Amino acid sequence: MKTVAFLGMGVMGSAMAGNLAKAGYQVNIWNRNPDRSEIKQATERGAAWCSTIATAVKPAQVIFICVGNGKDVEEVLFTHQGVVDAIAPGSVVVDCSTIGVVSAQAIGNRLQSYGIDFCDAPVSGGDIGARAGTLTFMVGGSPELYNRILPLLQAMGKNIFHCGPIGSGQAVKLCNQILVSHYMMGICEAMTLAEHLAVAPQLVVDVCGSGAAASWALTNLGMKVAQGDFTPGFMIKHMLKDLNLVTAAQGELNLPGTKLVTELFTAVANLPQGAEQGTQAMVRFYGK
Amino acid sequence: MKTVAFLGMGVMGSAMAGNLAKAGYQVNIWNRNPDRSEIKQATERGAAWCSTIATAVKPAQVIFICVGNGKDVEEVLFTHQGVVDAIAPGSVVVDCSTIGVVSAQAIGNRLQSYGIDFCDAPVSGGDIGARAGTLTFMVGGSPELYNRILPLLQAMGKNIFHCGPIGSGQAVKLCNQILVSHYMMGICEAMTLAEHLAVAPQLVVDVCGSGAAASWALTNLGMKVAQGDFTPGFMIKHMLKDLNLVTAAQGELNLPGTKLVTELFTAVANLPQGAEQGTQAMVRFYGK
Repeated sequence: MKTVAFLGMGVMGSAMAGNLAKAGYQVNIWNRNPDRSEIKQATERGAAWCSTIATAVKPAQVIFICVGNGKDVEEVLFTHQGVVDAIAPGSVVVDCSTIGVVSAQAIGNRLQSYGIDFCDAPVSGGDIGARAGTLTFMVGGSPELYNRILPLLQAMGKNIFHCGPIGSGQAVKLCNQILVSHYMMGICEAMTLAEHLAVAPQLVVDVCGSGAAASWALTNLGMKVAQGDFTPGFMIKHMLKDLNLVTAAQGELNLPGTKLVTELFTAVANLPQGAEQGTQAMVRFYGK
Repeated sequence: MKTVAFLGMGVMGSAMAGNLAKAGYQVNIWNRNPDRSEIKQATERGAAWCSTIATAVKPAQVIFICVGNGKDVEEVLFTHQGVVDAIAPGSVVVDCSTIGVVSAQAIGNRLQSYGIDFCDAPVSGGDIGARAGTLTFMVGGSPELYNRILPLLQAMGKNIFHCGPIGSGQAVKLCNQILVSHYMMGICEAMTLAEHLAVAPQLVVDVCGSGAAASWALTNLGMKVAQGDFTPGFMIKHMLKDLNLVTAAQGELNLPGTKLVTELFTAVANLPQGAEQGTQAMVRFYGK
């Protein structure tokens, strides 16, 4: 049986590791904070807790990482008693964190100097998709590596895409975040105008959702925007992290819409509880 | 057999009148410019050309209008030898133009002083939807009037919504235009970043279209944005007209996204051919 390590037991990682274990893989899990409540999501499905990175990684052919930002990934990989100290020859590293194009390429280069293959494989679909095993994976890396890890990804996701060389999974993920941020701004402004004009928000969802304005976001988040239900699917602080990665990747490009959505999310993140609310809380900028 | 008048034989009106005629109604059509090539779309399906508003309107129980802006509607209705001079008692006026909330309410009030019932019924779905009879209608007016004209609308559209009192059809249409404008800005910025990062645009359409960024706009206009195919579905000059109606309706509301998309569309409208290109030509702002 194939052994994999999964490092990072947040909301996403613990659910993903659980699905790998359920699919029959030997899954060794580790987390910086061993007391995190999500860990039992993975152990209950058969994953094995390891108290050090080394014990998790040594017997594994594939090492998954799902942590916060590029610095966190580097810490797990390269610090004393990190992945590179324990990894077996021929094993590969797959990073599912959203860390941006530049970081992914730098990490890929650095791992190559150790003789370790790497691919970036950020996801979308949120905690619901992670638990249900319906995530979208955007994979950047060699075709050979992609084919090698594909069965593992299929145990955790539904839509798996090979996007190109290392960093291109991150690139597509950033495009995705640009799209959903703009959709959210449109929904917030449409709902704000609807309220001002005494139109029922459900009408905007139903009518506009039946034509050229149809979107997953309008159908699934439109009423939450209108009703002020800010329970997070995806938190504003995480979206801001991703939008800052866009800024780092865009170079000289002028993207005024992305600049504006970043300003609006920042304004709401500075309101009480704002940073931990779902992206639909952007509507608080409009006085909701 | 019920007789209707249809005033305004543009791309939309001629196709809509043709579908009414095909459905078995006696349709009297009129247009300010009698030489417009679209008129034969209606006459070929059985509509009867009338050289004056009076001859079209006199025998009709329902008078449809589909022209440009609120001033055009008022001209057709209230000038010498306009609709109010010819309309039979008990007949009603249905305006399918996008003229904004304030204009629709003012026209409704003015027609009421003549004892004429009115509803606003702007559409979405474009020329394709108009020809196929699959338009979305957003109707503002009394429930009685809505029920009375519903069979006629069903001959021209697929999704018919009663939105509330006079003006509320316009209100929902303006919300729709806010949504699609923001979606377009997101698509343009995502495609601009994708090109900068050497990601194939089809990947953005496929990958992002499979998750939380899924939208009709991304699926149908994403590749046009990337390939610079600016053939109009909906022209930028018409979108700018609608966004100006949003400005008129929003009062004191602060809608920075709508302000920004208006600026971008205006910039492209000032480029060669820009005003007559489809809304996806917004990407020209980004140097395409």
